[in-house]
Amino acid sequence: MNYTMLTDFYEITMANGYLECGMGDRIAYFDMYFRQAPDGAGFAIMAGVKQLIDYLSSLEFSKEDIEFLRSKNMFCEKFLDYLSDFKFECDVWAIPEGTPIFPNEPIVTVRGPIIQAQFVETMVLLTINHQSLIATKSNRIVRAANGIPVMEFGSRRAQGYDGAIYGARAAYIGGVAGTACTISDQMFGVPALGTMAHSWVQSFDTEYDAFKAYAKCYPDNCTLLVDTYNVLKSGIPNAIRVFDEVLKPMGIKKCGIRIDSGDITYLSKKARKMLDDAGWTEASVCASNSLDEYIIRDILLQGAKIDSFGVGERLITSKSEPVFGGVYKLVAVEHQGEIIPRIKISENVQKITNPYFKKVVRLYSNETGMAIADVLTTYDEVIDDALPYEIFDPQNTWKRKVITDFKAVELQVPIFKSGKLVYESPSLEEIKAYAEEELSLIWDEVKRFENPHTYYVDLSQKLWDIRYDLLKAYNA
Amino acid sequence: MNYTMLTDFYEITMANGYLECGMGDRIAYFDMYFRQAPDGAGFAIMAGVKQLIDYLSSLEFSKEDIEFLRSKNMFCEKFLDYLSDFKFECDVWAIPEGTPIFPNEPIVTVRGPIIQAQFVETMVLLTINHQSLIATKSNRIVRAANGIPVMEFGSRRAQGYDGAIYGARAAYIGGVAGTACTISDQMFGVPALGTMAHSWVQSFDTEYDAFKAYAKCYPDNCTLLVDTYNVLKSGIPNAIRVFDEVLKPMGIKKCGIRIDSGDITYLSKKARKMLDDAGWTEASVCASNSLDEYIIRDILLQGAKIDSFGVGERLITSKSEPVFGGVYKLVAVEHQGEIIPRIKISENVQKITNPYFKKVVRLYSNETGMAIADVLTTYDEVIDDALPYEIFDPQNTWKRKVITDFKAVELQVPIFKSGKLVYESPSLEEIKAYAEEELSLIWDEVKRFENPHTYYVDLSQKLWDIRYDLLKAYNA
Repeated sequence: MNYTMLTDFYEITMANGYLECGMGDRIAYFDMYFRQAPDGAGFAIMAGVKQLIDYLSSLEFSKEDIEFLRSKNMFCEKFLDYLSDFKFECDVWAIPEGTPIFPNEPIVTVRGPIIQAQFVETMVLLTINHQSLIATKSNRIVRAANGIPVMEFGSRRAQGYDGAIYGARAAYIGGVAGTACTISDQMFGVPALGTMAHSWVQSFDTEYDAFKAYAKCYPDNCTLLVDTYNVLKSGIPNAIRVFDEVLKPMGIKKCGIRIDSGDITYLSKKARKMLDDAGWTEASVCASNSLDEYIIRDILLQGAKIDSFGVGERLITSKSEPVFGGVYKLVAVEHQGEIIPRIKISENVQKITNPYFKKVVRLYSNETGMAIADVLTTYDEVIDDALPYEIFDPQNTWKRKVITDFKAVELQVPIFKSGKLVYESPSLEEIKAYAEEELSLIWDEVKRFENPHTYYVDLSQKLWDIRYDLLKAYNA
Repeated sequence: MNYTMLTDFYEITMANGYLECGMGDRIAYFDMYFRQAPDGAGFAIMAGVKQLIDYLSSLEFSKEDIEFLRSKNMFCEKFLDYLSDFKFECDVWAIPEGTPIFPNEPIVTVRGPIIQAQFVETMVLLTINHQSLIATKSNRIVRAANGIPVMEFGSRRAQGYDGAIYGARAAYIGGVAGTACTISDQMFGVPALGTMAHSWVQSFDTEYDAFKAYAKCYPDNCTLLVDTYNVLKSGIPNAIRVFDEVLKPMGIKKCGIRIDSGDITYLSKKARKMLDDAGWTEASVCASNSLDEYIIRDILLQGAKIDSFGVGERLITSKSEPVFGGVYKLVAVEHQGEIIPRIKISENVQKITNPYFKKVVRLYSNETGMAIADVLTTYDEVIDDALPYEIFDPQNTWKRKVITDFKAVELQVPIFKSGKLVYESPSLEEIKAYAEEELSLIWDEVKRFENPHTYYVDLSQKLWDIRYDLLKAYNA
């Protein structure tokens, strides 16, 4: 499937328009950023860069695409010729997948002929918005589970096939241990697992028969679903009976049960005791059933005895906030070699853009190793971390702080240079490990679910001045 | 892209298990149904059958798929051979796309060898859940707009590529007039349109220059985005100036403006007056910016002057309720030619399944033409609409009502017979028209957003008896 035509129609009308008025080659700079993390969180997690690369690498208009556009009677032949010979020529920078990201910082920057840099808007946003949404949500759920493995079980309730496939990938970046989605294992190596549905149990004459058949088939992977009829009166007793009859003679001690309905806290405690009393201390208890970070936190606080969680629809759709609000804004254009900042004004001051061609620099304390602040600078500034550096709140500029003994790291990395791929995507395992490492450098206060501390995302003095001058000029 | 491997891993472990214990050929019946419509609505709209057909028609395991499964060291060679030669053999019935559907009625039924009928669960649910969710949400928004056209603008915030592509398709079934998603026009004929982004305006030296260039390029499709700097002080005055200078000399009267931020009610009234005063009475006002059915209803009640709505993230993700909770449950198995009902018990009585091989019959009043009730019957019952028919509430069986002068229509249609496709999908335009027609036969009370009237979905006496006998037996 080629996604070149997966684009808002206005990207095409604008592209044709730029060409027709002789502006197609004008160099423009676009930033993707978001204004607020989902669920009122203090941060999000970057994901989707690999798929963005796949898209940008395969931009191509087929003959059928050109014919389709011609049939609209809106586009000039010169433009259709341009599309026929389309060759991606932009520079692209992005923050690597797995990085904690914060509001208002450019997570993707595209520089190139405006006809191209504009065109890719829809897919830049769609790709990064979706996977960052799910990686962020997954990480919240994983953190709530506090070390207990979480499995992604949501394919059947995902919003479309890619919602399931790439959702499982993003969830893995966010920290889940695996998925139920087989194709995501095959495509990306997200470990897939699963055992049985209620229908397995129902299809046999008795629950005991169903469990016994399963245990004989999969003695090494024997997790039995115990809530088809009655968890405590029938499910667990039948499971124990089958463990005793089938697994014990084989010397197998690892097995498990899954509870998919009812009061998980109560049932898991009862289940644990029943299994332990029967000598099955190594049998694990898996819980599923409309879980999310809030429910998991609650049931663990109440002492539920769970060894793994299966989380479905509330993860794969980020149900409590199913939109990652990334935007893609023009921040500068070039004129005779000079980079001219551009701004979008709004009555809502939070919606006014940060103009100009920028870098994102993360400052880490040398003492603690932890991230202190991010600073947006102009593309040509360098923060010398051998010297003290003063950061300030861009809204309340009297709030200032001098940082010393720190390390400054530029977050964006070059992905494409003049349309040529210059970045090698890490493996998914590497991304997952990197995410875990980087998250450990973010203070817990920022990671809190309720009222998280606001991490500093400041502007350099030079960038702040550029912005202020534009605002003054527009208000004059 | 072949989606055969887009399946929960447990579908495969169960399939292998059925084969290993000699039950693979056992005939089973599965129903897909939902327990509650999203947003507390009184009904939902069926969508996704065409894509379900595409999936079932292309079920095939490649050599790579078989190798991947073999590498798991969980599956027997006999099973892998079976998959290599997989041929879909099930019967499938479904309610046609565009039909209003209600909780607890089977919207898809699959009958066939359990190894197959079980396997397709994930994709049956994923496909129908996603598109029915968006068709249902789209229809709510379209109804709130009360005749004013709604455009689907959400691709950039969709949950993955298919979320955008099939979401636009489903939104069209639900009643939107078109989409911004170009590829959905190309693939399905959902009319795509769009004009400009803020970046178009920003990329020119002045807003006036930007508008003028656009008007010259697209005099027949000249909708100008007026909120880049200031709607009333700059956007609309510049738009009027450009309409006067470019369109008026060409004799063009149809044009428009789009407002994408600020108070839509206030701005649209002001805009209408400014346009009318300048003689541009045929200039339309389009509003976008985080709209949904509640906001649209509110701003129309306040007298906003809008000619079309662009609705993005809240439609394409069904933001207020992003999950359509369809389930797929075993309802019967065959044994020596006899159909044996199967039930799933739950402490939550709402979650107890309706067993047996069933039909869904909709009863329409001959007097008003309106839908009165749906009745689930056994597969071999016929409701003779020449005779009075007594319906009753399956929870409160003393609530009874005799229906006379009605027409009984079976809702499910055969889609596959022994794996062979026997259904011709209507065109998308036909589905959209059919949805509108069928919706006109549902009472407004059922369509209300808040506290909708509960439409009757009853069981025939025969079906009720089957269910009650099973419940008694399990509770004995």
